[in-house]
Amino acid sequence: MSYEFRIRRRVEFSETDAAGIVHFSSYFKYMESAEHAFFRSLGFSVVTKIGQEMYGWPRVHAECDFSAPLHFEDEFEVHLLVREVKSKALVFDFHFALPEEIGGRRIGRGSFTTVCVTKKPDGTMTSSTIPEAIARRITVAPPELLEPR
Amino acid sequence: MSYEFRIRRRVEFSETDAAGIVHFSSYFKYMESAEHAFFRSLGFSVVTKIGQEMYGWPRVHAECDFSAPLHFEDEFEVHLLVREVKSKALVFDFHFALPEEIGGRRIGRGSFTTVCVTKKPDGTMTSSTIPEAIARRITVAPPELLEPR
Amino acid sequence: MSYEFRIRRRVEFSETDAAGIVHFSSYFKYMESAEHAFFRSLGFSVVTKIGQEMYGWPRVHAECDFSAPLHFEDEFEVHLLVREVKSKALVFDFHFALPEEIGGRRIGRGSFTTVCVTKKPDGTMTSSTIPEAIARRITVAPPELLEPR
Amino acid sequence: MSYEFRIRRRVEFSETDAAGIVHFSSYFKYMESAEHAFFRSLGFSVVTKIGQEMYGWPRVHAECDFSAPLHFEDEFEVHLLVREVKSKALVFDFHFALPEEIGGRRIGRGSFTTVCVTKKPDGTMTSSTIPEAIARRITVAPPELLEPR
Repeated sequence: MSYEFRIRRRVEFSETDAAGIVHFSSYFKYMESAEHAFFRSLGFSVVTKIGQEMYGWPRVHAECDFSAPLHFEDEFEVHLLVREVKSKALVFDFHFALPEEIGGRRIGRGSFTTVCVTKKPDGTMTSSTIPEAIARRITVAPPELLEPR
Repeated sequence: MSYEFRIRRRVEFSETDAAGIVHFSSYFKYMESAEHAFFRSLGFSVVTKIGQEMYGWPRVHAECDFSAPLHFEDEFEVHLLVREVKSKALVFDFHFALPEEIGGRRIGRGSFTTVCVTKKPDGTMTSSTIPEAIARRITVAPPELLEPR
Repeated sequence: MSYEFRIRRRVEFSETDAAGIVHFSSYFKYMESAEHAFFRSLGFSVVTKIGQEMYGWPRVHAECDFSAPLHFEDEFEVHLLVREVKSKALVFDFHFALPEEIGGRRIGRGSFTTVCVTKKPDGTMTSSTIPEAIARRITVAPPELLEPR
Repeated sequence: MSYEFRIRRRVEFSETDAAGIVHFSSYFKYMESAEHAFFRSLGFSVVTKIGQEMYGWPRVHAECDFSAPLHFEDEFEVHLLVREVKSKALVFDFHFALPEEIGGRRIGRGSFTTVCVTKKPDGTMTSSTIPEAIARRITVAPPELLEPR
């Protein structure tokens, strides 16, 4: 069972803005990349067929606090932690930081609440219990790793 | 003095994703567009020179709740409301909805906390009291317009 | 029958980059917005069901020349012109310029080749003759409006 | 001296669109990523200070042909080749393909023409001869690697 995942990225030019720093909306894409990489690390995609059902994981809440800027070509890490596992939803925390080897400066942190849905061919989504095949692979991070909100 | 602003947009194809709906990160760009249009409505840009100082408004917090999806070519409104005016920061609420004339269905809501900074030519930013020229144009929305959080 | 369309936009902050100007990839989104608005002006969407068939218009070629930069909050126009109407494809030219009332400075120009396809429910696309309902609404722009390539 | 560079990426969800495939504008970001990685492989950034001058590389032309779609989570390669080295400009070709180990299917190809500029602190750009420190590291790819246009 897994409760965390780390990705490392380098800031791309298209992620920056005219203030000379990473545009704040890019952090939400970075969090999503970490979330999807976490699912792949468990052997799943966020778009998964199990039996006859097509499952998806839309977000119902997303947030981010920004404490220091990132710049073009900066390398950084996104550390995903599982905060909550509910019957139909997952809550992820994300910590942004520069790499440890250059000091590990904190950049920001964010959170997603994603709900499990089944999708009809016409695109309509219905809230669903998390399939057992997925639920048994994910657990809540130890409290000492989770920061107070 | 002003405490609200509304923009109307139509979903563009580049704002959607392979789930067939607007990508969640696009809502943060929509909120920013409303915020910047609000500043323009007051006669300012979010990047403004007052005296010798260049002012900017980076976000320190952004969040959004998603209650219904938007699709390609949907028209929708973003309603900005000023929740708080602090000496060095503003808190905005944003309400997303379909246009009134087609029922006004609620799509989601979000919030930004933006801080006033002065920027040096090298890009470094220092927290600053909101300039009087701007502060006297902005006030908090009436409590009956603000939703409990 | 129609052979041109104009849209006016204002540069959004999320479309800029750390060079302080509009990121070159944004021009391709601007061209797409003009193309989709042109289809709407004819009474169609680029995603249209005619009879039992779902039609789409993927691009097989896109290009852009950049002659002057756009900056945050600049207003500008995109002028779409139909260069070619083939049995299964359309070629559009796009001219970017500042508004006439502030001098009309040329910003750049681009081109798309889009092919008409029918789409199966599983997403696979097959090249198709442009449906008569659409073809009879679109014609080639007069040669004096089209620039040599 | 170097004339080529390869990067491998995996399609991210935010790069897709409601047609279920990678949005065509994303290919231009992929090409830029390959271009910037190529510069890093030579020991430079596309934003480089040499002596007292700040150099940049804006694009004056960008194009792409799309022959097969990419989907969410597809892995693919971008192969950059130097087509031309002029005194003040570089022309790059880019080939998109699935990885060799799964067949290497061709996805598309593109091209950039980038010009060397020096940038003033106020952001204005002036066309410049490519600095010797950079020019001596880059050469044209052998003709057998370059495809006819």
